[in-house]
Amino acid sequence: MGDELTLQGLHDLAEGAAVLGTGGGGDPYIGRLLVERELAEGRRVRIIGADELPDDALVLPSSMMGAPTVFVEKLPSGGGNVAAFRALEEHLGRRAYAVMPTECGGLNSMIPLMLGAQLDLPVVDADGMGRAFPELQMQTFGVLGVSGSPMAIASDHGDTCIIDAGDNKRMEQMARALTIQMGGASYISDYPMDTAEVRRTSVHGTLSLCRDIGRTLREARAAHTDPFDALTAMLADTIYSLGVVLFRGKVVDVERRTVDGFARGKALLQAVEDPDDVLEITFQNEHLVARRNGRVIAIVPDLICTLATDTGAPVPTESLAYGQRLTVYAISTPPIMRTPDALACFGPAGFGLTDPYTPLEDLLPVS
Amino acid sequence: MGDELTLQGLHDLAEGAAVLGTGGGGDPYIGRLLVERELAEGRRVRIIGADELPDDALVLPSSMMGAPTVFVEKLPSGGGNVAAFRALEEHLGRRAYAVMPTECGGLNSMIPLMLGAQLDLPVVDADGMGRAFPELQMQTFGVLGVSGSPMAIASDHGDTCIIDAGDNKRMEQMARALTIQMGGASYISDYPMDTAEVRRTSVHGTLSLCRDIGRTLREARAAHTDPFDALTAMLADTIYSLGVVLFRGKVVDVERRTVDGFARGKALLQAVEDPDDVLEITFQNEHLVARRNGRVIAIVPDLICTLATDTGAPVPTESLAYGQRLTVYAISTPPIMRTPDALACFGPAGFGLTDPYTPLEDLLPVS
Repeated sequence: MGDELTLQGLHDLAEGAAVLGTGGGGDPYIGRLLVERELAEGRRVRIIGADELPDDALVLPSSMMGAPTVFVEKLPSGGGNVAAFRALEEHLGRRAYAVMPTECGGLNSMIPLMLGAQLDLPVVDADGMGRAFPELQMQTFGVLGVSGSPMAIASDHGDTCIIDAGDNKRMEQMARALTIQMGGASYISDYPMDTAEVRRTSVHGTLSLCRDIGRTLREARAAHTDPFDALTAMLADTIYSLGVVLFRGKVVDVERRTVDGFARGKALLQAVEDPDDVLEITFQNEHLVARRNGRVIAIVPDLICTLATDTGAPVPTESLAYGQRLTVYAISTPPIMRTPDALACFGPAGFGLTDPYTPLEDLLPVS
Repeated sequence: MGDELTLQGLHDLAEGAAVLGTGGGGDPYIGRLLVERELAEGRRVRIIGADELPDDALVLPSSMMGAPTVFVEKLPSGGGNVAAFRALEEHLGRRAYAVMPTECGGLNSMIPLMLGAQLDLPVVDADGMGRAFPELQMQTFGVLGVSGSPMAIASDHGDTCIIDAGDNKRMEQMARALTIQMGGASYISDYPMDTAEVRRTSVHGTLSLCRDIGRTLREARAAHTDPFDALTAMLADTIYSLGVVLFRGKVVDVERRTVDGFARGKALLQAVEDPDDVLEITFQNEHLVARRNGRVIAIVPDLICTLATDTGAPVPTESLAYGQRLTVYAISTPPIMRTPDALACFGPAGFGLTDPYTPLEDLLPVS
């Protein structure tokens, strides 16, 4: 990528990020507005590959923490991310060379772009999930040995904390408790890394991929071709390799609670042609498992995306509503996310699910 | 005081601290053992007056945070307080000259003595409450303008956090949430102060006073004289001035829950001679208000102490039990704790009580 993000590129990236956000990671519209404001004020977003980093760079990820249901009511301020980023720099006694995302998501892919524009720092084209996950320890960074600590967390009131936990799961628990105290949403900077760690532990090229997904959907709409076919064709040449339509139906029930700092719940879809054919999706901020008539047909960390049937536009969990026509689209997660250590961290067991992990391609009906 | 604490002095101090702990501040037996271990290993406790500090000293208070009901089951480790103290020093980029207590209490008066012995630092003979209170913002330090932040908090797992809040009440809320995550008990160092701030904002001489209270009770027991009369005579010459027996009875009911990180509840006492004469004490870690037959007869920040009727030994809230013979003894709080700003912070309204503050001496029956 290596060059400046255009307004069109930003729109594409925001939409693609919400697709890979698998229902979580925040609303793409809110996130996009934060970056649009920066571009409108003459600042610029520079995206660079991990291979373009100097060898001695310090890279700090930046994101928001909390339930997406809260972000809708409490719009993010720009200052919180700067406060967390600067607090971590100060604690480390070093300036960062670049910022990077921790996950793909409508909001959390945008936060590092906003911060990069505000602080005039490049944004690394990589992240720690290649999708969105609800908890901080669920990152390839940690799976591959990087400590999430020290991390910084900031509130809308200008309060900051530095957490130094010996374990990334305990870091998550402490940061979650603080986020709840901070009003359900907070600004964080965690997993400080050097160049070698970024190159070794991250999912590469995900910002470019988000932009490509968004462009593919936009071009399909303009050409009046099927957006899902276009998406499947495009993904075939990426590290994700497989994208497939799992189900088409309408939302007939949504159960959603904001509890323990997460948006937890279930959505039930009914096939348009056959009311007895139902799909149930369970989510914790992100979609975790899809069961068709009781049988698991896709499960975390493979991606379960809820997209509008007419346009392919991603619909986040906090926007799921009765009557929506949705296409449930699954994407196989990249190999770095399917190792035994990775599955122990963010496979089904990491979410308390008793279903085993079965790769998406093994769950597909033989056609 | 200025000299080394003896084993006898330690025993007296622990008992006196539990008296001023007004039911909270932790168990004096557990706290005493922590310091006894240090003395047994040849380390020493040096107590100095605030007037003996060099003008440019950095003083860091040290204490435990959490519900006393938890401390009983989860004994404090020495390492946690050192970790919090060192984390705050590191954050400030400066070594402390001395440690000091934040409150009087069976456990929290002992923690700084233990730390002083471990780190070979003097302990300042002063604190921020002159009694115990359940929340971190409830300190004369903060009432008189000192920021509680930055503060350090450590867990038994070796995790540490630095909290930098713009407001002492928000600092309390964040630290409380972390303490709950840390298992209900944590080790903290807060309100970093210079010499001038210590001198201006603290309640002076409270360690000496605790030791004098303990010695008075011990000597009364040895002489077979009334410990409460002896206490009243001794307090007359201190900044507390008034000590008075409010009620003698037995415990007939205790309602106690560990909720939101606090031990909350009520105790009901019945007069030995007259079963219709009852006293109800409401507590949040510490005793907040005493109502005799429905009428308030003592209220926070005046001190309400539950002492064993036969010995005068303090009985903390977590040890209250059916059938105990208790004497409820009240002590008027020093003038620095009765200013309008002080009452706004830790008077009845600070605890959500609707009763107004009335000084102890105005509530006494004219005799």
